[in-house]
Amino acid sequence: MSMKLEHIGIAVTSIERHLEVWRDIFGFVVGEMTEVTGQKVKVVMLDVGGVHVELIEPLGQDSPIHKFIEKRGEGLHHLSFEVKDLKEMIEELKKRGVRMIDDVPRSGAHGSVVTFVHPSSTGGVLIELSQEGAVEQEV
Amino acid sequence: MSMKLEHIGIAVTSIERHLEVWRDIFGFVVGEMTEVTGQKVKVVMLDVGGVHVELIEPLGQDSPIHKFIEKRGEGLHHLSFEVKDLKEMIEELKKRGVRMIDDVPRSGAHGSVVTFVHPSSTGGVLIELSQEGAVEQEV
Repeated sequence: MSMKLEHIGIAVTSIERHLEVWRDIFGFVVGEMTEVTGQKVKVVMLDVGGVHVELIEPLGQDSPIHKFIEKRGEGLHHLSFEVKDLKEMIEELKKRGVRMIDDVPRSGAHGSVVTFVHPSSTGGVLIELSQEGAVEQEV
Repeated sequence: MSMKLEHIGIAVTSIERHLEVWRDIFGFVVGEMTEVTGQKVKVVMLDVGGVHVELIEPLGQDSPIHKFIEKRGEGLHHLSFEVKDLKEMIEELKKRGVRMIDDVPRSGAHGSVVTFVHPSSTGGVLIELSQEGAVEQEV
């Protein structure tokens, strides 16, 4: 199966505060700030040499990211890989016994559809699989 | 400052067990297994489309990775960025108030020298900075 790293997600309490280090000191290029209402977060994508780092800030206490930070503190949250056909990928993973969080793709940032693989199948790593430009499948 | 993502480090209790998912299901290409005695770990580098994922397994209970897994469970451990001049980078970061774990580069895998930025300066992310082929500076 063909997977391409799309971004590395980092959970933070305040995007503004952490931009000081990532942008001003490390020199990452900062993209547009976006709200992903379905997941109750706002996100900003940083770019360094073609690799994307996504800072994720919770919008409210019922955001999954708020719960993550409460439990584990700020830090590395997930890896996101782009795949060509998300539905086919989900079927293939399930057939091979990989545990999924979502069996059905849901809407992500920038018109993509996404699904998450459960960390119990990947050595504790939350993995997002995304397919670009598939918003017509949005659920 | 110029930074390039070198790899994403993942702490696991058993490399062998997790290769099943990363290699056999996700299709990552697996590199050589290496022991980094200074950090009491063995590591294997996986490649997907030019991006490297490093699985890190502790060698003994006094390994920092053993302590990490005990405290937080398996999962994302650090991001490693390659820099051109590690000593200059450390000086620059310290001047800007970034907290370092190591003030002096130490030996990493494959003849590199490395240092770590403290997670308190980066939104909870442990960041390794490495310089390739600088083993003559090894301490």
